[in-house]
Amino acid sequence: MTNHEAVDVAIIGGGGAGLTAAIYAARARRRTVVYEKAVTGGQIGTTDRVDNYPGFPDGVNGFELAERMRRQAEHFGAEMRYVEVNAVLPQPDGTFEIETAEGTDTARAVIATGGADYNHLNVPGETEFTGKGVSYCATCDGAFFKDQEVAVVGGGDAAIDEALFLTRYASRVHVIHRRDELRAGAILQEKAFASPTIDFTWDTTVEAIEGEAEVERLRLRNVKTGREEPMEVAAVFIFIGQTPNSHLLRGLVDMDEGGHAIVDLEMRSSRPGLFVAGDLRSLAARQLISAAGDGATAAITAERYLNHLGG
Amino acid sequence: MTNHEAVDVAIIGGGGAGLTAAIYAARARRRTVVYEKAVTGGQIGTTDRVDNYPGFPDGVNGFELAERMRRQAEHFGAEMRYVEVNAVLPQPDGTFEIETAEGTDTARAVIATGGADYNHLNVPGETEFTGKGVSYCATCDGAFFKDQEVAVVGGGDAAIDEALFLTRYASRVHVIHRRDELRAGAILQEKAFASPTIDFTWDTTVEAIEGEAEVERLRLRNVKTGREEPMEVAAVFIFIGQTPNSHLLRGLVDMDEGGHAIVDLEMRSSRPGLFVAGDLRSLAARQLISAAGDGATAAITAERYLNHLGG
Repeated sequence: MTNHEAVDVAIIGGGGAGLTAAIYAARARRRTVVYEKAVTGGQIGTTDRVDNYPGFPDGVNGFELAERMRRQAEHFGAEMRYVEVNAVLPQPDGTFEIETAEGTDTARAVIATGGADYNHLNVPGETEFTGKGVSYCATCDGAFFKDQEVAVVGGGDAAIDEALFLTRYASRVHVIHRRDELRAGAILQEKAFASPTIDFTWDTTVEAIEGEAEVERLRLRNVKTGREEPMEVAAVFIFIGQTPNSHLLRGLVDMDEGGHAIVDLEMRSSRPGLFVAGDLRSLAARQLISAAGDGATAAITAERYLNHLGG
Repeated sequence: MTNHEAVDVAIIGGGGAGLTAAIYAARARRRTVVYEKAVTGGQIGTTDRVDNYPGFPDGVNGFELAERMRRQAEHFGAEMRYVEVNAVLPQPDGTFEIETAEGTDTARAVIATGGADYNHLNVPGETEFTGKGVSYCATCDGAFFKDQEVAVVGGGDAAIDEALFLTRYASRVHVIHRRDELRAGAILQEKAFASPTIDFTWDTTVEAIEGEAEVERLRLRNVKTGREEPMEVAAVFIFIGQTPNSHLLRGLVDMDEGGHAIVDLEMRSSRPGLFVAGDLRSLAARQLISAAGDGATAAITAERYLNHLGG
């Protein structure tokens, strides 16, 4: 079934980027639909406390913040549709068909904001303790573990950057890496090795994350000897890459090596009428406030795009 | 007098971009100083009601929002210094000297966020009625003038884009232009001419903006005939360009034609260690949320820059 009244701006994803784009597109009185397959808020929707979203000096619950954004978008007239988008199909006339299980919409512009998922270890306790000591973002959560021992899993630039960040809060940072050397750049390695707060546990994987209400220890396994041993930590920060949810854009827009859509400073992808905001785009800062900023930028560029279309 | 303890991140400007950068840099436990010559908040500091900052579905007073951001930055340890920066001087060792009337600081990284000022008509009533019917941003304030008559001053792309935006709220949009043709692009012109809601007043300048508590009328002058006449409107939107506060960066970084610093997606300028966020950078969306997003991105890139420095 095709809904014949065209959507002006179809926004895929109802996280911080998508909801902000919706606030702007709807406030511009464009017919705006947000497609969200699960719940609004994206990554923040499940974050207990957001400390670094400007304007909330005492912190704010992530779900509550997402709800406030959703109400704001709906107040201006955006329509929330809780359904998964199965395909985005460019049409010869420059519009896009948005295919869902509930039917197909025609959209004049699309803002894709599907975000990215941090890669998981897929070990027992990881999901259970997410937000209770398991984190994928030191910038976000490091400050909650002042003067405590924490672990970092990974050996790339991101892992070492985040380990260095954590030294400013934690009493000790254990870097756990499955190999016997780091992939991180030379200067980062040098700094990490020189830090009195960082130590390294090589050739080691995390087999399980354990505790009562919060993370209390890791069960480690040496991949060479097979020996298992516990490590007592209050938190584990996992930096083993992330995977953008870019399957809908495959073949439609240019992407970087990691599968993020390449955009310009105004959030244009390589395809006219298709804009990308938030963690789904290349070189995102991966923070709620940056994603929201992207969303506003994308909506403003989309508005200008619609104004400049002939006809 | 030189303060000998180096600043890690010197942030010039205490608006939305600067305060957000401060939240992030201070939360990374970098020694962070925000230099602000007037009051915190930048453009929003004087905005009565901000409707489109995500997270405040009922709107928020601009000054209050700025104060909340300032408290948040100070809570994480950022230092506010109310003094004008006179010069930013790159040193041979890669640091920067920040010169103020109160002395000189050495900074390892700089985030410039001085913003941009909208060009003014410089006519009686303009300053007095700013926020009371005089506006420089239809995206921000257009919704406040539903079903009322408004004027737009200007003839470029921005003016016509904003006039088209305003047709979705206002009952009538009078475009006042001092010439007898528009500079705006052909398709935009065509759309504006076709709009039943837009009319044009050519060869005309605004001599004064008048009213009691709020804007009630403009005094117009035909530049060819010299004849003056009033125009009754509830608001006047002025789009005659804007001037970035980039004098401190002149000669230090690459700029676009308009004098905005050219940045990449991670807010790096052409000079290592110097980052630019908000309306001072090229191609900014000129919205608080986008400026704040930039600020976070710049602080994260600055943090990575400091981590990767040798020594």
